[in-house]
Amino acid sequence: MKNNKSEKNRVLSDQLNEFVDQTILVAGFIHKKRILGGITFINLRDRHGLIQIVVEEKKEVEKLRGLQIGTVLEVQGNVFKEDRAPGGYEIHQPQINVIVAVENEPPIEIDKPLSHKSDNLDTLFDYRAIGLRNINEANIFRVRAALLREIRHYLTVHDFIEINTPKLVGGAAEGGAEVFKLDYFGKEATLAQSPQLYKQIMVGVFERVFEIGPAFRAELSATTRHVSEVTMLDVEMGFIKDHNDILDLIQDMLYHVLTQVYDKESKILKQLNAPGLILKPEFPRFTMAEIHQLYQKNTKIDVSRELDLTPDEERWICDYAKKQLGCEAVFATGLPQAKMKFYHMKGDNNQARSADLLFRGIEISTVPQREHRYEILLEQMKSAGVDPESIGFAAYVSAFKYGLPPHGGFGFGIDRLTEKVLGLNNVKEAILFPRDINRLAP
Amino acid sequence: MKNNKSEKNRVLSDQLNEFVDQTILVAGFIHKKRILGGITFINLRDRHGLIQIVVEEKKEVEKLRGLQIGTVLEVQGNVFKEDRAPGGYEIHQPQINVIVAVENEPPIEIDKPLSHKSDNLDTLFDYRAIGLRNINEANIFRVRAALLREIRHYLTVHDFIEINTPKLVGGAAEGGAEVFKLDYFGKEATLAQSPQLYKQIMVGVFERVFEIGPAFRAELSATTRHVSEVTMLDVEMGFIKDHNDILDLIQDMLYHVLTQVYDKESKILKQLNAPGLILKPEFPRFTMAEIHQLYQKNTKIDVSRELDLTPDEERWICDYAKKQLGCEAVFATGLPQAKMKFYHMKGDNNQARSADLLFRGIEISTVPQREHRYEILLEQMKSAGVDPESIGFAAYVSAFKYGLPPHGGFGFGIDRLTEKVLGLNNVKEAILFPRDINRLAP
Repeated sequence: MKNNKSEKNRVLSDQLNEFVDQTILVAGFIHKKRILGGITFINLRDRHGLIQIVVEEKKEVEKLRGLQIGTVLEVQGNVFKEDRAPGGYEIHQPQINVIVAVENEPPIEIDKPLSHKSDNLDTLFDYRAIGLRNINEANIFRVRAALLREIRHYLTVHDFIEINTPKLVGGAAEGGAEVFKLDYFGKEATLAQSPQLYKQIMVGVFERVFEIGPAFRAELSATTRHVSEVTMLDVEMGFIKDHNDILDLIQDMLYHVLTQVYDKESKILKQLNAPGLILKPEFPRFTMAEIHQLYQKNTKIDVSRELDLTPDEERWICDYAKKQLGCEAVFATGLPQAKMKFYHMKGDNNQARSADLLFRGIEISTVPQREHRYEILLEQMKSAGVDPESIGFAAYVSAFKYGLPPHGGFGFGIDRLTEKVLGLNNVKEAILFPRDINRLAP
Repeated sequence: MKNNKSEKNRVLSDQLNEFVDQTILVAGFIHKKRILGGITFINLRDRHGLIQIVVEEKKEVEKLRGLQIGTVLEVQGNVFKEDRAPGGYEIHQPQINVIVAVENEPPIEIDKPLSHKSDNLDTLFDYRAIGLRNINEANIFRVRAALLREIRHYLTVHDFIEINTPKLVGGAAEGGAEVFKLDYFGKEATLAQSPQLYKQIMVGVFERVFEIGPAFRAELSATTRHVSEVTMLDVEMGFIKDHNDILDLIQDMLYHVLTQVYDKESKILKQLNAPGLILKPEFPRFTMAEIHQLYQKNTKIDVSRELDLTPDEERWICDYAKKQLGCEAVFATGLPQAKMKFYHMKGDNNQARSADLLFRGIEISTVPQREHRYEILLEQMKSAGVDPESIGFAAYVSAFKYGLPPHGGFGFGIDRLTEKVLGLNNVKEAILFPRDINRLAP
């Protein structure tokens, strides 16, 4: 957490303890202002937290008259130990330099918790540019950045190469209806729904690749789970034996990433009331049939005719594994082939070579082996109504024609993971500036 | 560079030295196949390099009959020291297991250098999915990944928080004509040309932010510099004194990133014939007037009437600084305000509070201070014909209304940086799957 050359004289909020009884320079935004018997108390917000400043001298109090939250100050003053101040220290005898004066009262109060109730979310997002200055709101995105950092670290250490693949593609690469289309110099382009085809191509180059980038879906639903732009992690790995190698990979990655983030960001996670982490290095693996059976035995609800897990079963099995097995991540295996996409590999007994990874009550990723055999892939594409010779697929199928090893991979939304880690209720709360059918701003 | 559990028996090409005279298992793609007097030599490509396999036994030679480049093999055999083999070791007495048989000859030869001549680039990109299997081609993208890794590391250590901002925006956020438009549930959306407005908003939250993501420009030109989708690094920092703090930041960042990449990737850079790095921790800073003068004095070409640096001057001053001052990165300061955008801060004497960073002959970034004063910003927006109350700008101006400190930042293309580091001729050579006016696939 180095300062820049330009900041060599600036002390940050969490460094005050090093300067007790010394005169220092701090800078930040007025986050809160209280007047108590002629004394003005300022909470100054900088990028590491809050600094309490006690303004007694009339000349200095006068400088602050009429100035609102958000005003930018530089303050020179003396550091005193004060247990009641945020961080345990405060600044006395300040000399205040107003850098930017804010004279309008902000439209929302940023020093109090912002409401995340579902009927207040529009307000939350309408005033996002200001609301993010609330410390807990910002902390959501510190945790998100920590997740990104630890994911990249894990994958890089394990020999995965980061790639950037195009978001403007010819044709709807994966098929499916919910694509955004646009005019591309007279041709039709679509916005990539995922880097699926490109990451598989890249297995032939690097064996192991990952990408973190935006993905676009023209989601017509307005629910807590649907957004039209997400940040996706995509991972693909070659030279596997079967999909169990991919299960091992995502399990090991998530175990390391989450234990690291819970360790390094423990203070923030506590402030945000994030649920404690209950995880084992090996996640329990159940077949769908086993989950059906366990669920039915415990809830008396008949799910024997369901082809997939019901949402309530997903919640139930995570809760069961957490309480009974000490792990809130679970793999559901033995899923029906009906759920498969053309690029998945078929397994035995009409079951996909795939598992669903459930975490804290919902599926966060599907973890399949891909079909790498050229002729079989062509058949599966044709059955799915996908033309292997069309603009979006020609390069993809050529990678198989000229040899791709057995491989598999997964993808999941960074937004969704952040939401679940923090126990939020809506994926949009984990996105700085969310996009859905009703929202294109700010 | 850990192996996975699934790979516990697989030895990679750069680990053979640990297993001399032992029997091991390797796996990879046939990269080259030669038959010499009844002996078949295979170069097997894995993610770390090549393994030479000497196939003498008739039964094993027979397994390879008709198999082409790209065929995926698992090979068990004995490791021998052999100075003429790539890496210095080779495999004898192999037992070959054909995992994926490729029977078609690839459309391009991947074991020979691929042509990057301008009239061969279409072929290069048409067969990109296969051509990237050429080791040097892939190495371009290993260097690119290393640049990304070191940039993120530098910024994270210096307290910058990674953000993800929307690529679907309402209205053309920065103004300008070259935007892609699309229908967004009945409204008009555009693809973000940069995260400019969002990163400035986020200075009010984190003081220091960065983003690496795609940016889109409907470039009508088909040149070596124009692509319609780039991967941009964007950085923004608050609480600065003036634009010189941003110059210090980009200078320090690039110095550290480039020295780290040149150190850690020296082998690859050598293989790619990348130019050696000639850099000092402090980049020379010249005013535009000084450059005009120096250039004119040395070349006898009159540029006194130019408002900006000419392309030849950019090349010349980088070359001059490299030879005379031992640094191939240069700042050009004292640029005319005429080049400014509405969000830049005006300086004295009609000069922008900004510099251009030149590296190896071209401008790679503009490095300005922003206008942070609300009233002046509104004026500059109006002068530029930008409506502060429109959908793309309302949140942006609110961030200023409620207080933003003096700040500045920069952005540059990761593609462009990779191109210049490797001494390529065309930015598209540094993009996996480039996009331009004529290209939307693969």
